[in-house]
Formats: sequence, structure tokens, C-alpha cells
Amino acid sequence: MQLKKVKESLVVMTELVLPNDTNLLGNLMGGRLMYWMDIASALSAMKHCGSQVVTASVDNISFENAIRRGHVVTIQAQVTRAFNTSMEVHLKVWAEDPIQHFKCQSNEAFFTFVALDPNGKPRQVPPSEPETAEETELYEGAVRRRQIRLILGGKMKPEDAQELKSFFVKS
Amino acid sequence: MQLKKVKESLVVMTELVLPNDTNLLGNLMGGRLMYWMDIASALSAMKHCGSQVVTASVDNISFENAIRRGHVVTIQAQVTRAFNTSMEVHLKVWAEDPIQHFKCQSNEAFFTFVALDPNGKPRQVPPSEPETAEETELYEGAVRRRQIRLILGGKMKPEDAQELKSFFVKS
Amino acid sequence: MQLKKVKESLVVMTELVLPNDTNLLGNLMGGRLMYWMDIASALSAMKHCGSQVVTASVDNISFENAIRRGHVVTIQAQVTRAFNTSMEVHLKVWAEDPIQHFKCQSNEAFFTFVALDPNGKPRQVPPSEPETAEETELYEGAVRRRQIRLILGGKMKPEDAQELKSFFVKS
Amino acid sequence: MQLKKVKESLVVMTELVLPNDTNLLGNLMGGRLMYWMDIASALSAMKHCGSQVVTASVDNISFENAIRRGHVVTIQAQVTRAFNTSMEVHLKVWAEDPIQHFKCQSNEAFFTFVALDPNGKPRQVPPSEPETAEETELYEGAVRRRQIRLILGGKMKPEDAQELKSFFVKS
Amino acid sequence: MQLKKVKESLVVMTELVLPNDTNLLGNLMGGRLMYWMDIASALSAMKHCGSQVVTASVDNISFENAIRRGHVVTIQAQVTRAFNTSMEVHLKVWAEDPIQHFKCQSNEAFFTFVALDPNGKPRQVPPSEPETAEETELYEGAVRRRQIRLILGGKMKPEDAQELKSFFVKS
Amino acid sequence: MQLKKVKESLVVMTELVLPNDTNLLGNLMGGRLMYWMDIASALSAMKHCGSQVVTASVDNISFENAIRRGHVVTIQAQVTRAFNTSMEVHLKVWAEDPIQHFKCQSNEAFFTFVALDPNGKPRQVPPSEPETAEETELYEGAVRRRQIRLILGGKMKPEDAQELKSFFVKS
Repeated sequence: MQLKKVKESLVVMTELVLPNDTNLLGNLMGGRLMYWMDIASALSAMKHCGSQVVTASVDNISFENAIRRGHVVTIQAQVTRAFNTSMEVHLKVWAEDPIQHFKCQSNEAFFTFVALDPNGKPRQVPPSEPETAEETELYEGAVRRRQIRLILGGKMKPEDAQELKSFFVKS
Repeated sequence: MQLKKVKESLVVMTELVLPNDTNLLGNLMGGRLMYWMDIASALSAMKHCGSQVVTASVDNISFENAIRRGHVVTIQAQVTRAFNTSMEVHLKVWAEDPIQHFKCQSNEAFFTFVALDPNGKPRQVPPSEPETAEETELYEGAVRRRQIRLILGGKMKPEDAQELKSFFVKS
Repeated sequence: MQLKKVKESLVVMTELVLPNDTNLLGNLMGGRLMYWMDIASALSAMKHCGSQVVTASVDNISFENAIRRGHVVTIQAQVTRAFNTSMEVHLKVWAEDPIQHFKCQSNEAFFTFVALDPNGKPRQVPPSEPETAEETELYEGAVRRRQIRLILGGKMKPEDAQELKSFFVKS
Repeated sequence: MQLKKVKESLVVMTELVLPNDTNLLGNLMGGRLMYWMDIASALSAMKHCGSQVVTASVDNISFENAIRRGHVVTIQAQVTRAFNTSMEVHLKVWAEDPIQHFKCQSNEAFFTFVALDPNGKPRQVPPSEPETAEETELYEGAVRRRQIRLILGGKMKPEDAQELKSFFVKS
Repeated sequence: MQLKKVKESLVVMTELVLPNDTNLLGNLMGGRLMYWMDIASALSAMKHCGSQVVTASVDNISFENAIRRGHVVTIQAQVTRAFNTSMEVHLKVWAEDPIQHFKCQSNEAFFTFVALDPNGKPRQVPPSEPETAEETELYEGAVRRRQIRLILGGKMKPEDAQELKSFFVKS
Repeated sequence: MQLKKVKESLVVMTELVLPNDTNLLGNLMGGRLMYWMDIASALSAMKHCGSQVVTASVDNISFENAIRRGHVVTIQAQVTRAFNTSMEVHLKVWAEDPIQHFKCQSNEAFFTFVALDPNGKPRQVPPSEPETAEETELYEGAVRRRQIRLILGGKMKPEDAQELKSFFVKS
């Protein structure tokens, strides 16, 4: 399969926070934001592999700043690295008050997707090629994040995660 | 503040997977499931603290089995432990084919919420009391999961997470 | 067909009242509540019969207390009695202000469903077995409620509804 | 308060059955239809009384014919009679296959609404005046239907419902 | 194909403006109104031709008066003229404050649809027959509006639009 | 008020076509697309003027290619020119089959918005500055398109639209 540049998988999504997306205090509910993040990152993964995909995992997400009704949410999703049949996607989320022109980054996250053939079975994806410094850093960190997922999912023993182990012991 | 039993925060939610919740292969989209999980766990946290809450973080979630259009999703959410102004909620998710009576656990997750006063500022929550063996195990593990969140959120250095460190080195 | 216990058909659904579910006064619209009640009771009927179902009728519902935006609606649905190809489902609805911890029963209702085979034709359902005193009372009242439905639907003459007639004349 | 003609409260609503309104067999879910019926009849009641209203009760509804995805649902709602602070609304529902030009009446129902002042308290509504023979028949039957509702809601003893009693004993 | 009277294609739709249909000022968003207008006029076109249709074009729409949350929108759609495989539909939109009984016409528009056979290819539609003076005027104006569409869509040169040209030069 | 570059108003929106967005043939309904276009262009106008906006008019839109369920819709919206209290926004719409990597431009449109102050009254907007050749062409064409709108809206006589008249007579 032919190498694909990660930048070709870039997806930008813009959503307006409507009343039904908010709780009684007028703040965007976390679940609504994750719904949008899942679609944006799935589209990015589909762009990379050219097939249907299914969400395999979502890494720890923390929600820093309240996003309010009437604010505009912008989500940028881009594949960081392709593995055998899966792809890690990196998301950046900004919220903006369109009246005050005040924009802040509110989230960053990693979603992982598995490519599926028309029968719903996992299929091979093209290898990925980072170009910029930021893309390369994300590409290299992907292995460590993958080990954390495997450990947390009970599919790898912590002592076998060499790269991760050194992260905790030495740093 | 008075101690509250964690079982009082139990919330059970049942949802039918409708066409708009699925992708082209007829599988429930991960983002839709996270939307439901966020509401179920927020309601559980509100039951514990009796005030509005906001999603603070979501731990790593992995999606094991495909859930299909027409299936029934059942979500059980219960507070595991209250901290100062925050609460960790544990979720179990089952999917069931109502025709085949085939039910499987598809997910498990931890969401964290912060209690808010009417002005949107964090407020104290009641301490929590586990009773059963399972509740106690979840209660005790909550500290370690909290250290992971703080490290992943850049708010704690890995070497300061004593409990977590021993988990990776010794185990 | 094998007898099934009615308690196996229990379904619990929890919904948060969002802005779009309410009218200008901030009260939950009756139609939204009936939408949720229909899904909860359909899932209960499907649990009993293991096939697709279609709503056949809804008995008189009265709406006592206003349910407000931000409140939590809990619906419990359970089959009361199976007839030839149909099932009566009993629903209890509670509304709760999660901040005030004030919970009240707001509704009770009976929905009837017909089981369908894959071609959309009615099919036989398993007989049902009540166990508790409450289940038995609902089981026995089901015949009288069925007569009311048949009369109101123009499919039975009032004078032929022996059990119902005595209810109006003697009581 | 000035008398209002019932025909002034006529509301016609047309809805297209979309995928999310249907179950796995492609049939419109009963709860979705009741959601539309509730809005159509609430608008009719608001037209009569010129104030906000709340659904007080829904009479027995039976669902005769399956309505399918892509069909068009037409609902006609009109006040039959105003009482002190409440109004009974009569609904007729048709479903049409727009391709086959096959249209059939699928439902008939009665919804009752209470008029509310801006503080959410019940308020007086104008008396209603039927004109055609059909309107008059519905107007006159409204008292009997109201007695059924009061009995079913536990607010009237069956033996006090004179008009209804004769209906069951004599007919 | 048999001539069809345009009045047979009349569709009336009534919608309540809910919170999620409005912007931060509580006004109905233009896009929501166009969504309803598209469905109402598609249903009208389907009534005329008895087949599936697809939106081909929308003429210039101007939005005069703000429509508010809680208002009732009534849309009347009727075919003005059938061409070979397409139909022009005329829409009138009213908004009403159901409390104040204040109703105003807020929009008028023309949508064009193409009839499709089951394979999604354009198919012939029946010719249309206007009866009233208003219907006849709309029928006759349809040719001129069609020329504007063809010019704006780059499918006709302005100098070839004889009828339209005289409209600009002489009037 | 300070001049603003038109490129600062660029908004990119990405939407996945879900089942409920499509008709029985599986094609995206025109009204759904216009709903998304309205939000994208409103956000662009808000970026330019820093206040709430309301849709004033939509120019003729033609829908060329069918967009299907599962396709990805990308909308680019950018202010072309600011007038006194209004802004014209230009939209380009692409649809893409994410599996086939086949992307085509499906629409182009002009929406006009009026800026509103917190009381809902029109307010002055900053003047706009085009930079690229394409931006300049759109900027210059805006006056002619505005004359068409005024004529079609009955607010200008055709013979007074000098620029437009020459367009029809000479071209």
C-alpha cells in the first residue's frame, strides 16, 4: 500500500452551540462535544484509509474551560500515525465567543479507529508519513500512547511496555 | 457535610439505537454512546451532590463489540468516590439484541465531574461511603486513577505519583 | 411456548429534560413524555416476546404535575399480561429535581403492543406469569382494561363486556 | 369572556416520516406520532384561549394501520368544547403514501389541555360554539368523555357519572 | 399523461418554533425555516407527480420579519406549473404569535423539483392546470422565473431570455 | 469603524450525511443542506461584525449533483462585501464520498445577513477589504447582486438598477 502524508487527512469542523447542547447553566455538555469529536476524527481516519471505520478507543480527555450557548466550536482532526489496521487521530478543539472574538483552546484528545472492509472485518491501512516537526513528534509519541491503551485495556502487561516504563521511572 | 452512600447515586439508562445513531455499516457511532454515557454519569453525580455538575474528564474508553441499529443500550452509572469538589463516576455499558436476547457488556468507563454552585463556581461535595466489596475496590482504586489523570493533564509529575509509580515498577 | 415471568420484562429508562423538550413556560411537553413512554414500553414488550413489536393502543393518560427543564424523568415499564399476539405493558413515571432531591410520581399508563414476525404479520407471544401481589393485581385487571379498549375501539358492544359492566353498575 | 367558534381553532399539520421516526421494520413509532399529535392539539387549544397551555390528559388511542418511512402524516386538530379552564381537542390523523396516492385515516383521538397564565396557574378560557352537525355532536359527547376521564383519573365515582352509566347499562 | 389541477397539490404544514430552532436572540434561524419550506414544497411536488422528487433550485428568498421562539409557522405550498420533468412550487409562509393572535406573512418563495424514477433518473410529470386568477398568474409567471434560473445557473444567455429581457428594458 | 480583511471571516464546516438527512432514495434533502449553509454563513458574518446577525436573504441556489447518505459535506463561507448594516457571504459547498475519495463541488450561493445590536436593531458593520483577485471579483459583483435582490424584493425599480440593466442589455 502506498504511503500517505498525514496532512491529507486534515478535517476542520465548525459547530454552533445550540440550546439543546447545553445544561441548565448554559454550558456545553461534555457528551455533545465528544459526539462532534468522534465524527470529526472518524472523517479524518476515513480520509486516510478510504474505507469505513469504527471507533476503537478514546484516550483520557480533560475539559478545561466552559463553552457556552452561542459559542462556536472548531475541531481540527488529523491522523498522527497508522498502525496495521488502526489509525490514531489527534484532535484540537477551540471555542470562540463570536461576539467578543475571544477564542481559546479548550481540548486536545486522541481517538483511535479501526478500518473495516464492507463485511465489517478489520482491513489493512496505508502507512502514514509525517512532515512537519509537530507531525513528527505526534508520530513518535503514538507508540507510547498505544502501550498505555493496551495496558489500560488489559491487553499488555505494564512491565512489557518498555517505552512507557522508562517514562515513569526516569522522568 | 453528611456522608452519602455511593449506591444512592445509581442511575440506569436505557436507549434504543435509532438509524441516526449509526454509521453506513449500521453500527452505533462511538460519539453517540459517549453522549449517553456523559448524561447518565452526570445524573449520577448530581444525585450524589445535589447541585449542577460539569464534566471534568473522561478516562480512556475502549469500544470492544459493535452495537447495531435496533439494539438496546443499558448504562449503569454510580459514583465511586467523592473528592473535595469532584466525583468519579463508574459506568458499565451493555448492549442487547432484543430479538435474540443476546446481551453483552460492551464498555466500562470512568467520568469525573465537578460540582458547581449557582454562579458556576466549584463547590464542596458530601463524602462518599462504599458498602459492597465491588464498591470498596472502586473506591480504593479512585486515588490511583486520579493520579493518572493529573499526570496526563500535566498537573502532576510522574515521579510524585507514588501509588501509580509502584504499579508500573513492581507489578 | 414457554411461560415467561413478567419481571423479566422490566425496563428502566432515565431521561434528562433538555430545552427542546419544553414549552415556553419551561415545562416538559406531554408529547415528548409519551415518546419516551412508547420506547420504554416497546422495549419491555420486546423483552417478553423476543420479536419486533408495534404499538396497538395507549390507554387514557393523565398528566398531574408539571415536569421542568433540567428535571430527570425515570420510566419503569413491565409487561402485565400477554394475550394471544398482544401484550399489555404497565408504566410508572417519576420526575425528579436532581438539585432539590424532590421526586414525585407523575404518571401511570398502560400501552398495548402486538408482536410481529419478520414479514410484519402478528405472531404468537409466550404466556406471562405474575409473581408478586402487585403483579397479580395488574395481571387480573388486564382483562377489564382490554374490554374497555375493545369498546372504545368499537370492536365490542358495551353490554357484552360482563366484567366491565358490573364495575360500573355495582361499584 | 367572548364566545369563540370552534372552527377558528382548526390546525393542520403535515409531517414526513423520516428514518429516525421508524423502528427496524420501517414503521412509524407510536410515540413519534403522539409527539406530533400533542403539538398539533396544543396549538389548536392555544388558538382558542390565547394563552399557554399544558397537556392534561390523552384519551385512549388505538393505532390501526402501519404508517411507513416516507409516508406523509396529516393531522387535523380542532377544539370540541371548552370547560372552565380546560379544552378538549379532537384529532384526526391520516397517512398517505405520496407515490401511490393511497391515503387512509389511521387515528382519531382526544387530548385535553389546561390554559395557564404567565405564572403557570390555570386560567379561565372563552366558551366555545359549535356550528356544523359534526361539531355539535363532538361538543355534546365531550361531557361523557370528561366523566370517563374523571373516573379513570380517580376523581369521580362511577356511580356519580349519570350520563356514562346509562351508556353502559342501556346501550 | 393526464392533466392535473394545481390545487390538488396543496400542502399545509404547521410548526412550533422550539428552542433549538432559534439563535441567541430567540429568533428563528433562516436555515431552519428553509428546511421546513423544502419539505413542504417537496411534498407538494410529490402530490402532483406521484414519484420521488429532488430539490433542483430555490429562488431568491428574503426574510422580512423576525419569527420568535414559541411562535407558530404555517407554510402553504402548491405547484404553480409543471414543465417536462420538473415542477415549480410556490410557498407562502406565515408566522403567528399564538398568545397575541398576531399573524403576519413573513415569506414567499419558489422552489423547483425534478421528478425521479426508482433508479434516480428524471421522469416525465403530468401537465398542470391552474383554475383561479391567482393560480393562472403564477402559472404564467413561471416561464419568466424559469429563464432567470437558467441564466443565473449559467445555462441560458441573458440575450436569449426574450421574456425576461423585455421585463428589464421596458418596465 | 476599522476596515476588516474579508479573509478573516473564513469559516469551514464539515458535516456527515446521516440517515435522517436523506429522503427515501438516500439523497441529502436540499433543506438540510440549506440549514447547514445558513449556520456556516451566519458564523462568517458574525466573525466579520462581532455581533449577532439575522438572515436577510438567500440568492437563487441550484442543486446540481445528488449528495448521498454517508457522504461528507464541506462548506466554506466568507464575507464578500460589507454594506451599511448588512454583509453578503459567499458559500462554496463540496460533497465527498470518503471511500472513493471522489469530491465534487455541488453548490455555490450568496446569503445576506443584517447585524443586530443587543436589542435586535440593525447596527453598523465594519467596512470590508478584499485582497486576492477572487475576493476582489466577488467584492465588485456584490453591488449587482444587491440590485437584483432589491428588485426581486420589490424595493427597487428595474429601470433604476443601472449596473444590472447593462448586464442584460449589452451582454
